[in-house]
Amino acid sequence: MTSTEKTITLAHGAGGGAMHGLIDGLFLSAFGDMPLLQKEDQARLPLAGLQARGDRLALTTDSFVVSPLEFPGGDIGKLAVCGTLNDLAVGGAVPLYLSAAFIIEEGLPLALLQRLVGSMAEAARQAGVTIVTGDTKVVERGMADKLFINTTGVGVIPAGLALSVAAARPGDKVLINGHVGDHGAAIMLAREELGLEGKLASDCAALHTLIQPVLAQCAGVRCLRDATRGGLGGVLNEMAEASSVEIRLTEQDLPIRPQTRALCELLGLEPLLLANEGLAAMVIAPEQAGQALALWHAHPLGRHARIIGEVRAPASPGRLSLLGPYGGARLLEVPHGLQLPRIC
Amino acid sequence: MTSTEKTITLAHGAGGGAMHGLIDGLFLSAFGDMPLLQKEDQARLPLAGLQARGDRLALTTDSFVVSPLEFPGGDIGKLAVCGTLNDLAVGGAVPLYLSAAFIIEEGLPLALLQRLVGSMAEAARQAGVTIVTGDTKVVERGMADKLFINTTGVGVIPAGLALSVAAARPGDKVLINGHVGDHGAAIMLAREELGLEGKLASDCAALHTLIQPVLAQCAGVRCLRDATRGGLGGVLNEMAEASSVEIRLTEQDLPIRPQTRALCELLGLEPLLLANEGLAAMVIAPEQAGQALALWHAHPLGRHARIIGEVRAPASPGRLSLLGPYGGARLLEVPHGLQLPRIC
Repeated sequence: MTSTEKTITLAHGAGGGAMHGLIDGLFLSAFGDMPLLQKEDQARLPLAGLQARGDRLALTTDSFVVSPLEFPGGDIGKLAVCGTLNDLAVGGAVPLYLSAAFIIEEGLPLALLQRLVGSMAEAARQAGVTIVTGDTKVVERGMADKLFINTTGVGVIPAGLALSVAAARPGDKVLINGHVGDHGAAIMLAREELGLEGKLASDCAALHTLIQPVLAQCAGVRCLRDATRGGLGGVLNEMAEASSVEIRLTEQDLPIRPQTRALCELLGLEPLLLANEGLAAMVIAPEQAGQALALWHAHPLGRHARIIGEVRAPASPGRLSLLGPYGGARLLEVPHGLQLPRIC
Repeated sequence: MTSTEKTITLAHGAGGGAMHGLIDGLFLSAFGDMPLLQKEDQARLPLAGLQARGDRLALTTDSFVVSPLEFPGGDIGKLAVCGTLNDLAVGGAVPLYLSAAFIIEEGLPLALLQRLVGSMAEAARQAGVTIVTGDTKVVERGMADKLFINTTGVGVIPAGLALSVAAARPGDKVLINGHVGDHGAAIMLAREELGLEGKLASDCAALHTLIQPVLAQCAGVRCLRDATRGGLGGVLNEMAEASSVEIRLTEQDLPIRPQTRALCELLGLEPLLLANEGLAAMVIAPEQAGQALALWHAHPLGRHARIIGEVRAPASPGRLSLLGPYGGARLLEVPHGLQLPRIC
């Protein structure tokens, strides 16, 4: 590679020799045995293999625009794999394939791109999913912020599974697998303009191996979501609304790291609205909550799992309430806007 | 809608009330009966319906960054549907489902977004594909150029079809369905900074209904590609290289509009390298070329179809050559870089 090729140029997105060089030399060498290696315009995947795993195809898409591109606990590449994979996993799907599309700003250092693509490939390998097709676009300097990645995921949902945000019933328990708000807090600390320092890492992780054993063993799982944008408060509010129930959390049962709490107090933020990238919220029939909790405790991503609340009949249907330490309950409103842009 | 809501704000991408309002009020109302209406994190599509249509799943992804967003003959919304659909169709797949992911720059007029999403919905409806899942991100002003759209397409390839860029054989004929370079030329004219005027429209169109009857009736189709980035020259070069043959075109048989030719002469461009968005290049066994041509002529998108050249044994294996009006042949080199950025 000559010195003039150490950053991405418009030629890398132009469909000619430079683009094919980038695809062969960087993407294909990182992603390995992609069916894309056939160099056709589409990946071709045997349907027989899919039917064997379930009766429905799951399809989900996400664009990642996180800033900064690299942060403690992850980077945009790892996030782009785990985020889409989790959107499949919370539907009960076995994640199988990903597409990966890159919008690159002219001038992005090739070494950085290589690192991020490598991280993506590593995350996919660890999760057992294959990146099967891709796309590369380059836009002029100033027309994008360094790098955006879209991933679209394909999985298969086993027959009989019917998770839904609308399925929560009074008496059900609410479980989460770890600390609340780590990703949002870590991104905030990673943004130099805030001038803050701290030791928080994103929880960015692929949750399917945590989720699948519970789904296989506990027929009483009703709703399952990963608490990304909008935070844990956002997803529980959606569940409460769609199921026409009240979800009540017990404030002191919420696992929130002291650093996250301190940061939120400093900036006037609500930890329940911070984004997470490795946190699943599960509503489950009360008689199976203990079994699910034990399964989670036995998994590296579920060591800090807890029952944090329960589903109640009306009182405030469609709402999320928090029981405070002195017995008073308050409603948690999900705001119109946001706490922080570009956290994913 | 209040006056403060007439442009996209960061709140529209934040996972709260504003985002849900945008999704419900704009995307879902345009895309209609999306399985996404279930408001789960993933679309759930019956596998039984897929097996009935073929034996392989086709998966393809494309991000669209075209500038300007609207141009004669189309816009980024129509392009995002047709472009991805065509990448499925040229693999012989029946296109079924699309995901749609939007990266929006803060400040984008809501009316413009509504128009583009409406155009996308209309293109999907006309093509008989369903947009089943989506994503919306908003980045700060100056961090993207107005709007980028990613679409990922899912289709099914009928059993027995095995199109490949590596399948061309000496003696095969090369067909295209229409004029060369319309899209690239129209985009150039639409860019005000060039100060040019002209009456050219993009050929942006969904090609599956043009392609499917030929595949159903002509077993001799070897390679099929849509000639987008890199132009007709780019895809024929790829076929020649992958098949280790020479592809020879007859220059005067190339259907190029006089306006496109004039523009290329003015700017020193090669029409064969201009992007197209509704042009398919097909390599087919010589004994079936006439039948395929007749099928194309009977289709509105194939009225100007022509046999433009043939596949030859070595001489220049892996190369594309052009036979000029006086009997001399020249090789067409596909350049390292590009003629024009952001044409799709």
